[in-house]
Amino acid sequence: MSLIVTGTVGIDTVHAPTGSQENVLGGSCTYFAAAASFFAPTRIVAVVGDDFPQEHFRVFEHFGSIDAAGLEVRQGSKTFRWGCTYQDDMNERETLFTDLNVLEEAPPKVPAAFQDSKYVFLANSHPAIQMNLLQQIPNRALAVADTMDLWINIAHDELVELLKHLDGVILNDQEARLFTDTRNLRAAADKILAHGPRFVIIKKGEHGVLMVHEEGVATLPAYPTGDVVDPTGAGDSFAGGMMGSIAADDEAGFTALQRGLARGTVVASYNCESFTLDRLLTLKPEEVTARLAEFAAMCHVG
Amino acid sequence: MSLIVTGTVGIDTVHAPTGSQENVLGGSCTYFAAAASFFAPTRIVAVVGDDFPQEHFRVFEHFGSIDAAGLEVRQGSKTFRWGCTYQDDMNERETLFTDLNVLEEAPPKVPAAFQDSKYVFLANSHPAIQMNLLQQIPNRALAVADTMDLWINIAHDELVELLKHLDGVILNDQEARLFTDTRNLRAAADKILAHGPRFVIIKKGEHGVLMVHEEGVATLPAYPTGDVVDPTGAGDSFAGGMMGSIAADDEAGFTALQRGLARGTVVASYNCESFTLDRLLTLKPEEVTARLAEFAAMCHVG
Repeated sequence: MSLIVTGTVGIDTVHAPTGSQENVLGGSCTYFAAAASFFAPTRIVAVVGDDFPQEHFRVFEHFGSIDAAGLEVRQGSKTFRWGCTYQDDMNERETLFTDLNVLEEAPPKVPAAFQDSKYVFLANSHPAIQMNLLQQIPNRALAVADTMDLWINIAHDELVELLKHLDGVILNDQEARLFTDTRNLRAAADKILAHGPRFVIIKKGEHGVLMVHEEGVATLPAYPTGDVVDPTGAGDSFAGGMMGSIAADDEAGFTALQRGLARGTVVASYNCESFTLDRLLTLKPEEVTARLAEFAAMCHVG
Repeated sequence: MSLIVTGTVGIDTVHAPTGSQENVLGGSCTYFAAAASFFAPTRIVAVVGDDFPQEHFRVFEHFGSIDAAGLEVRQGSKTFRWGCTYQDDMNERETLFTDLNVLEEAPPKVPAAFQDSKYVFLANSHPAIQMNLLQQIPNRALAVADTMDLWINIAHDELVELLKHLDGVILNDQEARLFTDTRNLRAAADKILAHGPRFVIIKKGEHGVLMVHEEGVATLPAYPTGDVVDPTGAGDSFAGGMMGSIAADDEAGFTALQRGLARGTVVASYNCESFTLDRLLTLKPEEVTARLAEFAAMCHVG
């Protein structure tokens, strides 16, 4: 049931109408692993520079079931840094800076002890790097990758090649439309499946999620929270909750994925209710269970 | 279990990337009643002019359980006419013309035989007219009204007064934000409830629906159709399916409303798959049942 995630660990600065935080732990691996750890042990593979603050390692330790043995600290390199400002409408954000730093160097390696991982999530990065990492995990049962508009635009062919090796791909609504030049998401999903994966999961932010799978379709609204403080990491914590659920169930069929969508939705909803990683740091497993039951009642089709 | 709807019956012209139709039967009452008739007999109250084509009466007859005895044909008046063009993005439309005609005159009366109606839906119209009609149905068990941005802007006080007399109000996401000056829909819903109704249903178009009720919250995605041909009447057919469901169940509590949201979603999804009223004219009850089961499976929270 071993779950592994490859992606970024970085230092974030976030400004929003609800507050500001500077130089806090961020990155796709971080949010993914924090969310997944509520369901299953999670291995991370990422690289940071020698400026990475020691206190941030303690955040990974806090979650207990995160194995950070794949987090390389590269001497002489600098950690990835990212800053953004959210507008009054929390669905829109402006990137203030993206200092790739160590991300422009060689990617990290998957440690030998992690190469037997069964459930693989390739968080957003250049599709050629994702492919490189994927090939280091040969005995996988399920491989899912995230991507973004940048790679759709500048690394289209590598992304198409990667799709042939994936079981599933996850992207947001705008990215799905960009990749397929198709507005209707159901139709866009069908076009993505034609590239090889068995399923595609389209994240719609506050509007929920749509999964089109070769065995059926699943769709859920977002949990209707009245209190969105900071959506940073929502997509990665959604994916983490989903993949953590799959690893916990040790199943990757349609039904297990559908259960994962709901668990991911619930963890992501908590993540948005405080700044950056704050809410996941205090979240209790019983709160996840309680909101999952509440969410199931909300989505009941009578 | 008698269901009544007040609103417009008109003549529509619709242009879309998918086709065009001129001078076809339209109006909120029409779509509502067509959708509701799949679940329960539906009484309509509306007024048209003496130019209303005879063939359009046969459309109401087609649905079998629509009682058009409350459809007044006013001599010397002209029927409401409305035209629109949808953009490539079918979620955006431009109104070409709105000839109110008979809608600027005195509203229709609720026939004596309809005054015992139990479930009342006041389709979109000036809130003072909605109030006038509501008062003619004194023994109602449930009253729900639709509204729109125009009345929020120019008849705010009358709308606030109407809300005190309603059990529920239904409006779209932009209207809910406009009325409450609040972006978050859960928070906007709470502000609307403070005006008196027991529940508010916020329609989010392709993103589904959110109901905030004094007894709980319900939320559903839209049915993910790959084939949106014409969204005209989607909101009214959603409301019709929902209220028809309530009348069929002869219950109006939270659970019955939640069941209604799903039934309304399914009928509205069919409505969008052909031009104007075309799909509802050929839709079979067993198709509604089948898609409802499919939709329940799609929305399952494992």
